[in-house]
Amino acid sequence: MNISKFVAPEIIFGRGSLSQLGESVVRIGASKVFLVSDDGVINAGWVDQAVYYLRAAGVEAEIFSSLTTNPKDFEVTEGVIRYREARCDGIVAVGGGSPTDVAKAVAMLAANGGRLQDYEGINKISRPLPPMVIAPSTAGAGSEVSQFTIIVDTVRKLKMSIISKSLVPDIAIVDPELLKSKDAKLAAATGIDALTHGIESYVSLAATPLTDIHALKAIQLISYNLVRAVADRLDMEANANMAMAALTAGLAFSNAILGAAHAMTHQVDGLIDQHHGETNASILPHVMEFNLHTCPDRFRDIAIAMGKDVAGLDTLAAAELSIEAVKRLIADIGLDKGLAQIGLKEEFIPLLSRNAMKDACLVTNPRSATCEEIEAIFRKAM
Amino acid sequence: MNISKFVAPEIIFGRGSLSQLGESVVRIGASKVFLVSDDGVINAGWVDQAVYYLRAAGVEAEIFSSLTTNPKDFEVTEGVIRYREARCDGIVAVGGGSPTDVAKAVAMLAANGGRLQDYEGINKISRPLPPMVIAPSTAGAGSEVSQFTIIVDTVRKLKMSIISKSLVPDIAIVDPELLKSKDAKLAAATGIDALTHGIESYVSLAATPLTDIHALKAIQLISYNLVRAVADRLDMEANANMAMAALTAGLAFSNAILGAAHAMTHQVDGLIDQHHGETNASILPHVMEFNLHTCPDRFRDIAIAMGKDVAGLDTLAAAELSIEAVKRLIADIGLDKGLAQIGLKEEFIPLLSRNAMKDACLVTNPRSATCEEIEAIFRKAM
Ligand SMILES: [Fe+2]
Ligand SMILES: [Fe+2]
Repeated sequence: MNISKFVAPEIIFGRGSLSQLGESVVRIGASKVFLVSDDGVINAGWVDQAVYYLRAAGVEAEIFSSLTTNPKDFEVTEGVIRYREARCDGIVAVGGGSPTDVAKAVAMLAANGGRLQDYEGINKISRPLPPMVIAPSTAGAGSEVSQFTIIVDTVRKLKMSIISKSLVPDIAIVDPELLKSKDAKLAAATGIDALTHGIESYVSLAATPLTDIHALKAIQLISYNLVRAVADRLDMEANANMAMAALTAGLAFSNAILGAAHAMTHQVDGLIDQHHGETNASILPHVMEFNLHTCPDRFRDIAIAMGKDVAGLDTLAAAELSIEAVKRLIADIGLDKGLAQIGLKEEFIPLLSRNAMKDACLVTNPRSATCEEIEAIFRKAM
Repeated sequence: MNISKFVAPEIIFGRGSLSQLGESVVRIGASKVFLVSDDGVINAGWVDQAVYYLRAAGVEAEIFSSLTTNPKDFEVTEGVIRYREARCDGIVAVGGGSPTDVAKAVAMLAANGGRLQDYEGINKISRPLPPMVIAPSTAGAGSEVSQFTIIVDTVRKLKMSIISKSLVPDIAIVDPELLKSKDAKLAAATGIDALTHGIESYVSLAATPLTDIHALKAIQLISYNLVRAVADRLDMEANANMAMAALTAGLAFSNAILGAAHAMTHQVDGLIDQHHGETNASILPHVMEFNLHTCPDRFRDIAIAMGKDVAGLDTLAAAELSIEAVKRLIADIGLDKGLAQIGLKEEFIPLLSRNAMKDACLVTNPRSATCEEIEAIFRKAM
């Protein structure tokens, strides 16, 4: 018996779709929302627009924006207190993966009580969450459609993966217009995060035909649009394609989970506050090399999706082209850096490796890995 | 501003997944369900199994099975009366498209009152429906994931399309084991229905990148598995692939709507009680010919998905291969019959054409059609 599950929120996609925010919140039954965002998004004017659309639909908003790059446990705790004080009955995020993950974690604790650590792992949430609408401002995390929230445990200095169907928002509003205010560096980093989601979910042990089509579409869109999107932040076709890529990658990994790259980056991101996409850029090619011989046919599909001509090549040779394509893309957008270069000290590798062994994402990596093997990948990625 | 929406239920897929029925119904908050099925499915033992799983989870079931091939208005009316008398608080269907569409229509009227005709068209439903779980026993209609219910108006002798997000069930349980009890003729007809969903939604004016990947996957799976599934009803790999195909085709057409073939079959099915898949088999190739020059690139993609080698061909020549592939597939499973052969009298064509012009599915056909053009297609399909 091999039973798979697939869950997706309602998705509203397109330029100008943020205008659907008020109506969407009313439709799912909220009248005062806790609106999580960050200063960059507020300064770009998107929160003002969101509040305008909410008010027009008769919805009040309590804005919460005291956040950092990687979302942290104490930020969630503060959010829960503010949510309760303001007597909100719904959650909205307008922002990237960080505000979205905080919004989801606040919703979880507001409805279920307890501490974040109580819910670490898979399917630990029992009570339904308040209604949630997410409007992403980056094309990367895919949290707007996923069952995941990833929060830094500042005591253990690692990212906790909390995975549950209850964390899928009710509605994702994906408006590519919001991407215009991202700078090139953020576009590059978030794009590689989405690529890592596509690749890890496509080779995941929990992949299904339904997750496969979403993963391959994401990989294809990213390899044809990321360089353009980074080079010209106002290229709206590239932005829209990257928004769709992040979304399809999100649907793929939400339902097929991830692999060793994320099990490893979750530890690095908990230790040094770099963008998660940059950490992925350093680690992904080395994890692909580690996995290559376990499922070469899958890596061959990835090479084809990335536009490589595999005619006449045997499976393994074709598969190897996927790594070449990924390395090339990472270099083309300037993220070809070792972990040392982004601030990781070698002495932490044994600790990070031990913690990676406990990460929920490692379970679905196609090749099982020992702690020594994870250490070796970390060293190659330095 | 070009905003698209995509809605899908939670999907549980796999051999043996019917065992999740009880737990699924409890999870969405029902304690006594109205279980719609038909005699074929009951005789195959699936309803007994379903009731067993429901009871094990503490859920009562009121069984309703007085149905015919194409679901009819008076069957829905009787269902609503029975639903209320039995004081049910949830809906389950175990069966093909007919029981599923009746289940959805009963849910709609039980919650919203009025007559079926009040809801004909798009987005006319205001009040939320009782919780619904659907377990399909055929690989065709895709109603287990769609926003559609299609019911025969026995006075006007046509099929009404009722389309609304509220009609998407909460959970679709797709267990390929249930397909084993379908005979070859039903497997053939339902398979062509799913193919028609894939093709019409792929060329639809409302197609989006998200519906495209589902449509193409369906077309590909059907062209590689339908002949096998018809030839050997116990070929479980072919059955599972056809179940996945019907599901992905359902997600595609639910969100991209259909085209002229369905606008036309809806009228024929309301007049002569043939299987909807057989009507599609007679009409689909002629509608493809009508649409071909409007979007040859799309038909080229379909030809590739069906395994045609298009190397060296210009777009139009490649596109034409899609029609050849569809005709071949229909012939291979014995459904290459004209409408006259399945019982349609020529004198009805003007009336059917006028009614087809009013069908909601015609709006998204890639080439707009006059009543005379629809008549001409009907005549070719005789
Ligand atoms: Fe990630
Ligand atoms: Fe159909």
